Amino acid sequence: MNGLKKKEKMHISPINKPQIFITMGDPSGIGPEIVLKSLDKPDIWDLAIFVVIGDGRVFKETASLTGFKKCLAVQDVDQTSEGKVFLHEGALNILDPVSFVGDFEPGKPTSLGSKKALACLKNAVQFMKGLPETEKKALVTAPLSKEYIAEIFPGFVGHTEYLRDAYLSEFVTMVMVGDMFSVVPITRHIPLKDVAKNINKQIIKRTLLQVLENRRLISGKENPVIGVCALNPHSGEGGKIGHEEIDIIEPAVEESKKFYDNLMGPVSADTIFYYAYKKQVDIVVSMYHDQCLPPFKMVNFDRGVNLTLGLGAIRTSPDHGTAFGIAGKNIANSESMEQAIKVALRAM
Amino acid sequence: MNGLKKKEKMHISPINKPQIFITMGDPSGIGPEIVLKSLDKPDIWDLAIFVVIGDGRVFKETASLTGFKKCLAVQDVDQTSEGKVFLHEGALNILDPVSFVGDFEPGKPTSLGSKKALACLKNAVQFMKGLPETEKKALVTAPLSKEYIAEIFPGFVGHTEYLRDAYLSEFVTMVMVGDMFSVVPITRHIPLKDVAKNINKQIIKRTLLQVLENRRLISGKENPVIGVCALNPHSGEGGKIGHEEIDIIEPAVEESKKFYDNLMGPVSADTIFYYAYKKQVDIVVSMYHDQCLPPFKMVNFDRGVNLTLGLGAIRTSPDHGTAFGIAGKNIANSESMEQAIKVALRAM
Repeated sequence: MNGLKKKEKMHISPINKPQIFITMGDPSGIGPEIVLKSLDKPDIWDLAIFVVIGDGRVFKETASLTGFKKCLAVQDVDQTSEGKVFLHEGALNILDPVSFVGDFEPGKPTSLGSKKALACLKNAVQFMKGLPETEKKALVTAPLSKEYIAEIFPGFVGHTEYLRDAYLSEFVTMVMVGDMFSVVPITRHIPLKDVAKNINKQIIKRTLLQVLENRRLISGKENPVIGVCALNPHSGEGGKIGHEEIDIIEPAVEESKKFYDNLMGPVSADTIFYYAYKKQVDIVVSMYHDQCLPPFKMVNFDRGVNLTLGLGAIRTSPDHGTAFGIAGKNIANSESMEQAIKVALRAM
Repeated sequence: MNGLKKKEKMHISPINKPQIFITMGDPSGIGPEIVLKSLDKPDIWDLAIFVVIGDGRVFKETASLTGFKKCLAVQDVDQTSEGKVFLHEGALNILDPVSFVGDFEPGKPTSLGSKKALACLKNAVQFMKGLPETEKKALVTAPLSKEYIAEIFPGFVGHTEYLRDAYLSEFVTMVMVGDMFSVVPITRHIPLKDVAKNINKQIIKRTLLQVLENRRLISGKENPVIGVCALNPHSGEGGKIGHEEIDIIEPAVEESKKFYDNLMGPVSADTIFYYAYKKQVDIVVSMYHDQCLPPFKMVNFDRGVNLTLGLGAIRTSPDHGTAFGIAGKNIANSESMEQAIKVALRAM
């Protein structure tokens, strides 16, 4: 316990600061490094109590690597320890799921590492669920390898879907938050041939409602301009290139305007991203993945933040992978992780 | 004839310069203005003999407006005058289809203006077809309103399709040429729901062949890097999000590599545009309109050049419309038209 006294019970937010839970991700990836680099920034550290769910030894070694000098308050936890941990102010609280102990080497992913990464995610959800609803909290997830996790946990396709199931969420929205603009794909990881048949008024309206409710969190502005993409080229040209704009998107956008005025669409995608690039549109709600991610990543590669709406708590993550190839070298760029934490802090 | 002597027959290229044919576009739009502004640039004017097919009076008025001082050699033409005109060196040759005479006011499009714009396009094709195949020539089209043209010529959907039919072309490829990178949508103005069923090995291979053959024209480089997009998000993730990558795109790209090495793909769209933005990929061949036009226009809005491959001659145009609202005010930006002419000159 590093000599620290047990000050606070987990469910009491000390000195009225929000609580940010951060999962380690794959212990052999750059997760631990970018977490510590981010938490070393005063404009982050001073704003919340941070709880990392991860491997104590890995974080101690990483602290040596990056020169992280703050106290590490490591506590062992297991799946029954819900509510039994205490948070230390002024220290980095590390909750270590001890059921998975082993050597984790940077750049050398193992099955045990995947198991530990998954245990961290599982524990994080358990702890967050144990907190009262009124508590200000958010989850930030460091990258793990979904391919490796899927080997030990078949069916795992990513954080978003795991958390949706863990929170029994009926409807989640994925947002990519960027410096210049943010994007929201209404349909996500489905074949292109299935996109049109998955677009309907209900999915557009539900997505828009979650976006409207979280517009400040997404954009950092009180009244961001929100634009909705058409499905077809040139917004269908009045029905000549597809009818979904007239039949589905236009009515859905019109009906959603009763909740928020500063909403436009459907606008053809090759026009709206120009507006977004010129900062005239803050949030682009798009019909499918490859309509919005290419322009977004073009100007935000490795700097975007993945934000999930519709869970029991706000969840963000950096928009990059485990980067096993550069792990353990103290050369990983923590910018996206810092942004992920800052976006989570907007929810507080 | 402005005192100029009849020097050269149309089919003889004077002083070994290439011939660039430029259509006026809608006489009430910004076409005439951006044409003259472009031709006033020494880095354009000195490189070719320019033949404008347009209204003589409109161009004289526009010359007063923009301060264009070069001699205008206006000749009347009609649909039977093929081969009977003469080109003047040192002057701007204007061929005026006289069947359509009238008052054309900037900013006030009329049915007669549309008829004249269409006559100019028709005449341009006739003249170019009359030239020997060995002659260096290219067509640059100024913007017209396809909605207005469609009213007098039902079925008109745009320059590209008109020229495809006029040239009896079996297969044309549309390219958007930009400063940083160029894009080629394999399918174009079709509903999104029909994209997947229109993607097959043949269309990919034919497009790639036209792109490979014209790679210098498109990119200005001898050996540009050409990247081919996947159809599905994340390039299908090995078959988990669609099979077209494995079944269609991968084999088509592999087979095309025998013609050109510097070809990669399929690459997921949200990765390849980042490479393109970083100038690591020069030409992105994409499966559909909204996969490539949004990132392209985001950084090339109103500056891109539309290039059509597969006609009897190279054809380029600026990537913007008639801009009736600012016509006749001498405030139109000619940058995209200048680029369109410069790309056409690359073909010479």
